[in-house]
Amino acid sequence: MPAERVHVPAPILEQLVSDIYLAYGMRETDAAVLARVLVWANLRGIDSHGVSRALRYLELCEKGEANVRPEISVQRSRPSVLVVEADRAPGPVALNAAMAEAIKTARETGIAWATVRATTLTGALGYYTSLAAEAGMIGIGIVAGMPNMAYEGVRGAAVATSPLSIAVPAEREPTVLLDMATAVIALGKITQYRNQGKELPPGVAVTKDGEPTTDPELAAVPLPLGGAKGSGMSLVFELLASVLAGNAIVSSFHGGGPDGKRHRQNAVVLALDVTAFMPLEEFRRAVDETLETLKALPRMDKAEEIRFPGERGARSEAERRANGIPVQKKLWGSLLAEAERLGVDAPQLEPA
Amino acid sequence: MPAERVHVPAPILEQLVSDIYLAYGMRETDAAVLARVLVWANLRGIDSHGVSRALRYLELCEKGEANVRPEISVQRSRPSVLVVEADRAPGPVALNAAMAEAIKTARETGIAWATVRATTLTGALGYYTSLAAEAGMIGIGIVAGMPNMAYEGVRGAAVATSPLSIAVPAEREPTVLLDMATAVIALGKITQYRNQGKELPPGVAVTKDGEPTTDPELAAVPLPLGGAKGSGMSLVFELLASVLAGNAIVSSFHGGGPDGKRHRQNAVVLALDVTAFMPLEEFRRAVDETLETLKALPRMDKAEEIRFPGERGARSEAERRANGIPVQKKLWGSLLAEAERLGVDAPQLEPA
Repeated sequence: MPAERVHVPAPILEQLVSDIYLAYGMRETDAAVLARVLVWANLRGIDSHGVSRALRYLELCEKGEANVRPEISVQRSRPSVLVVEADRAPGPVALNAAMAEAIKTARETGIAWATVRATTLTGALGYYTSLAAEAGMIGIGIVAGMPNMAYEGVRGAAVATSPLSIAVPAEREPTVLLDMATAVIALGKITQYRNQGKELPPGVAVTKDGEPTTDPELAAVPLPLGGAKGSGMSLVFELLASVLAGNAIVSSFHGGGPDGKRHRQNAVVLALDVTAFMPLEEFRRAVDETLETLKALPRMDKAEEIRFPGERGARSEAERRANGIPVQKKLWGSLLAEAERLGVDAPQLEPA
Repeated sequence: MPAERVHVPAPILEQLVSDIYLAYGMRETDAAVLARVLVWANLRGIDSHGVSRALRYLELCEKGEANVRPEISVQRSRPSVLVVEADRAPGPVALNAAMAEAIKTARETGIAWATVRATTLTGALGYYTSLAAEAGMIGIGIVAGMPNMAYEGVRGAAVATSPLSIAVPAEREPTVLLDMATAVIALGKITQYRNQGKELPPGVAVTKDGEPTTDPELAAVPLPLGGAKGSGMSLVFELLASVLAGNAIVSSFHGGGPDGKRHRQNAVVLALDVTAFMPLEEFRRAVDETLETLKALPRMDKAEEIRFPGERGARSEAERRANGIPVQKKLWGSLLAEAERLGVDAPQLEPA
């Protein structure tokens, strides 16, 4: 459907989104970070977490669920443990700051755990763990969000599709970047099936009432990865990111209190300094060797290629940096309308 | 098949196994730890990781793959990073020591990462993470082992079924104890299907040649959990536990070098001090609240109960501590034969 899309160069898209946030009232640095993280998701091919969510942050600010000018504070409660009070900051603002602090601390002590308390929509988790890899470290991240996924045995949404991301730097090869939800299928993927009028594969989602379905119109709740395993991972991420931060989501959401269903997320980002183990270049080369050994193994007949996590995203990034980011015309129109409303100059796109 | 089993009280089983190791030449403390970890797995109902593996450690020692009297050294390369040179110690000896050091370090700095380099069969990973929970901390562990699992697109075994374990202390409720392989099905489970002459569910394993099969006689390689997700987790665990320790397994195994296929494992155990965030009692109670909220949610028709990770294991432990551990007569016989060979007194079991 090429006619329904425009191809927007990444810097232009980022500038537009950043200008919108600035005009809305965010600080300049916050606006820039938020725009960068969203456009990064588009570059990596994760359009569900890209600029399609740009205006969602403004809605969250309107409702008071996100804070347009948050006062983020970082407390170092122990030499290697940080607690970042996000003050309802848009997730990218809080997690970007948290990972920067974690990297700084890990240079000193080898590892740092940074809990991000009370943030909103965290965006593509892989962005923050990638920051650690760019700094020559290993990055690990988890997020705990609002219940939107089934839990083994429960009827309806019980826990969140809480993701895990791990980034490992390589040398010749792109950064290894695992970024996976604890659900079998992403909510955004269900929407794609719905938009395309295609039936879902069996065993990926249930209706609001917990009945298995392959009808994307009825599918409301994704199932956990591997039943008890994905259920367990999501529950444990809630304990690590939310309960340990004193900001439980699952118990409060289901407990029926007045604020239980207000949108919020908690997260953990962790940086581990490779040089605590060996020289960085040596490690990077050893990572390459593992990746290249794996990619050279005998393939299944149907497999065109053996890929490692992050490889597809790195290719998408190279291609989209060169050719622009495909943006649905409807989405592009709504970004331009918001820009106009806020008095932001619309960018000039060259005809394709 | 009650006639094929004896019920052995846990202390008697542990003493017998420990005596065998001592007589074989292990140090007294090492023998005791190894026996304790194996019997713990039986108590928890994970018989595949219990005393059925007791004699496997002696075989590994015979072949020189495990070291009967290892000299384990712990280096603190940074304030919060430990590197434990396991000297081919039986896994439980090395991981038990590593977690004890990690807990000690985490009391100081809030968190400690301990890499265990060059160990053997690590046993039930949940044992070590539970040690952290018993100490009022959160325990996290991963293991990287010898390739025995498929990887998305690869024909045959490519990576390992490398597990992840996370333990979180509660108050009224048992410790939350996630302990999951990155495979859909454990190798030991395939053996159980084979022994019972039962067909495997589809999509859990392939033949040596990578063909899908439900025949447990032909099933040789378990499939990764969720395809790319389990594949990616296992690969990343290899990078974190093995490559970062300078003891790569995947590249060396497939690379064809002389020692590439010699049995070895690497691991990471991590301890995080809850009191870096809040008083321990407050956290334990908040964990209970989350667990109890979850367990009280509306159930699917077929679900008798909503369980959290570790709940079933805790029940098994209570039941087996009271009633003894069921041990296959054949296995019991082989333990007694080994005891006799080494001049160890056989225990007296009361008639059931």
